[in-house]
Amino acid sequence: MTQTKEHVYQAKAIVIGGSLAGLFTGILLHSIGWQVDIYERSPHNLSSRGGGIVLQPEIVAAFHQANVTYEAPLGVVANERLYLKPDGSIAQRMAMRQTLTSWNLLYGIMRRHFPNNHYHSDKTLAKFEQTDDQVTATFTDGTQATADLLIGADGADSTVRQQLLPSYQPIYAGYIAYRGLVNEPDLPQETAALLTKRFAFQQFPNSHILQYVIPGEDESLVPGQRRFNWVWYVNYDEVTELPELLTDKTGRQRDASVPPGLMALAIEQQMRDYASQMLAPPFQTLVQATREPFVQTIRDLGIPQMAFGRVALVGDAAFIPRPHTAAGVSKGAANALSLVEALVNYNHNVRQALEIWETDQLRLGMHLWRRGQELGDRSQFTHGKERFGTQNKVSERLQHLR
Amino acid sequence: MTQTKEHVYQAKAIVIGGSLAGLFTGILLHSIGWQVDIYERSPHNLSSRGGGIVLQPEIVAAFHQANVTYEAPLGVVANERLYLKPDGSIAQRMAMRQTLTSWNLLYGIMRRHFPNNHYHSDKTLAKFEQTDDQVTATFTDGTQATADLLIGADGADSTVRQQLLPSYQPIYAGYIAYRGLVNEPDLPQETAALLTKRFAFQQFPNSHILQYVIPGEDESLVPGQRRFNWVWYVNYDEVTELPELLTDKTGRQRDASVPPGLMALAIEQQMRDYASQMLAPPFQTLVQATREPFVQTIRDLGIPQMAFGRVALVGDAAFIPRPHTAAGVSKGAANALSLVEALVNYNHNVRQALEIWETDQLRLGMHLWRRGQELGDRSQFTHGKERFGTQNKVSERLQHLR
Repeated sequence: MTQTKEHVYQAKAIVIGGSLAGLFTGILLHSIGWQVDIYERSPHNLSSRGGGIVLQPEIVAAFHQANVTYEAPLGVVANERLYLKPDGSIAQRMAMRQTLTSWNLLYGIMRRHFPNNHYHSDKTLAKFEQTDDQVTATFTDGTQATADLLIGADGADSTVRQQLLPSYQPIYAGYIAYRGLVNEPDLPQETAALLTKRFAFQQFPNSHILQYVIPGEDESLVPGQRRFNWVWYVNYDEVTELPELLTDKTGRQRDASVPPGLMALAIEQQMRDYASQMLAPPFQTLVQATREPFVQTIRDLGIPQMAFGRVALVGDAAFIPRPHTAAGVSKGAANALSLVEALVNYNHNVRQALEIWETDQLRLGMHLWRRGQELGDRSQFTHGKERFGTQNKVSERLQHLR
Repeated sequence: MTQTKEHVYQAKAIVIGGSLAGLFTGILLHSIGWQVDIYERSPHNLSSRGGGIVLQPEIVAAFHQANVTYEAPLGVVANERLYLKPDGSIAQRMAMRQTLTSWNLLYGIMRRHFPNNHYHSDKTLAKFEQTDDQVTATFTDGTQATADLLIGADGADSTVRQQLLPSYQPIYAGYIAYRGLVNEPDLPQETAALLTKRFAFQQFPNSHILQYVIPGEDESLVPGQRRFNWVWYVNYDEVTELPELLTDKTGRQRDASVPPGLMALAIEQQMRDYASQMLAPPFQTLVQATREPFVQTIRDLGIPQMAFGRVALVGDAAFIPRPHTAAGVSKGAANALSLVEALVNYNHNVRQALEIWETDQLRLGMHLWRRGQELGDRSQFTHGKERFGTQNKVSERLQHLR
């Protein structure tokens, strides 16, 4: 382990995927002296579909490590959790301070920090090949890139993973999230006052909804310019119900989500009716004020291997924990933090560093994956797989609780 | 899980031990609305023996969660790692940004934040007893305290653990750390310039020394008022050598450490001679400039259970990972963060929350414990158990490397 030569060669990395996990990896590898090129398949600037994100410590640590400067704070502080009764009154308050941020804010900060000439849009990976000494990526436009390390940070439907582990695909968890964002001025004052500075929940059999305030679309933290972010988990049968739910207003059936502005009108109306029946008045108001709700299927993905010689999978390309863990984004940051730590500790020996790195990161991924299943299954399936209200016995339980 | 009653009763916690792990637990339980009393056996203000601490994200997260305010930054930033050759020249530089802080700074910030009238000094736990509903601590002065939860944060030789798991004790790892702190003005300018803003190492067979700059004893971050913190790991046989090493200048044989100012003169002289033989010139200068070096034995502790009804063990009372993990202090913060999260998620039901909490925290503890053993054994015992230089074959290896 004793080093005797000055390190002169600048190591090179290819990162496939330019969303959050790719950017975390990019800025962190850059911070330990690597030359990094990020390849993103989308031809446009990425825009947020994710909405709110809980600011976990790994995100802050990654920014610190990469010397990413930002105007503190990195999000909006909520001071307590609020549990609402069906009538909208407060069932319980609990002190619990958290910082809530957004996909936009994290993406914007990292994207501005990462050198533009090394961020390549409209680049779709076709395949990669590796030897003992290097790895080469070939893109669908015929161009190639060669480096010491290739990172698959290309999300749930990762092309890199498909080449390495073709039989591993995300699995539908049995429920979806209706989601929405509401600009602060668009919510009636009374509801806004209740939901500001708070992480608010309403729990009912086989479902729950939650909300918190996040930065504005332009990253603003100024009161009045921020957004209410809500997530409502609802069970849908994969065979009999999900295909219709995922068919957008143009008639196209989507794989895993329906973005803002594209929900079919009949589906959106069903959701709004359902909200009027089930939700406490403040949450009803929140859903009503949402102009472009969207749908995200909840999926599980776990894999048995993350390091493959000079290739590694990070973020959603490796593990998708359910959102109840509030750790999807911070896991990507943790993957990248741990990667650079291993590279530094193992003298930038890629294969050795990846081997050590993998042990911990598999453990982290497995843990979050299982913990998310426990949390989600408990809240969504305690009374069977049904969506609440479709069976009398469950309906009776609600009556009893009201 | 649906809550239907406003939470009115203020839950109470007893924390045994008023050092860092106890303070993390205290400020975090306080932040979720608990009444917390900390009991510290020392009659005096605690003073640092620990020196430097790597600022891990859990520490920052705990401060945020507890709304602990401080003047940013929380420590001194090092921008790179430096590996020195035996002749003092640079073997390798690696970009790696870290914030280095100190026991003093973390203790001072938390101690000022925690209410004075709930921090009780000179209180030694005699025993505790629990029922289904509460737990009562009895102190050696005959007084008692009763609460919903008792936390054993009383360190490596925890009284709480001794009552719960009497057969688990820290085990000597086969080596000690010589440590020291040098005020910035006390180091010659050339050496100071080399060691500032850097995490510097020298590795040689069966040993390594490291240093980084930390805040001053008064928590100052001002250049010129800070301290160089160094740690040098050296193998000592438990039976034939350790007792003499741990005998202080008053002739008292100590259990696990010899504090600053108390090293026996002959031992200190041995260490200084040994430094002159083995260390690169900048590290020799650093050791020479150290007025009161101290000794800390490296110990391992792992336990199979952390939650016992209404009683839990945190920090060094539960697991002692070797210092190579740089996670000893942040593990205490992580234990406390996870505890309050579980309490909030399980509606302040102590027994249920502790059960859930334990699973993850045992996993974290086990992981750090094993990782520390791997790292330490690799750097200290690759060439056998001998202290370097005591055997010709090892000495020859060094000659070869010089």
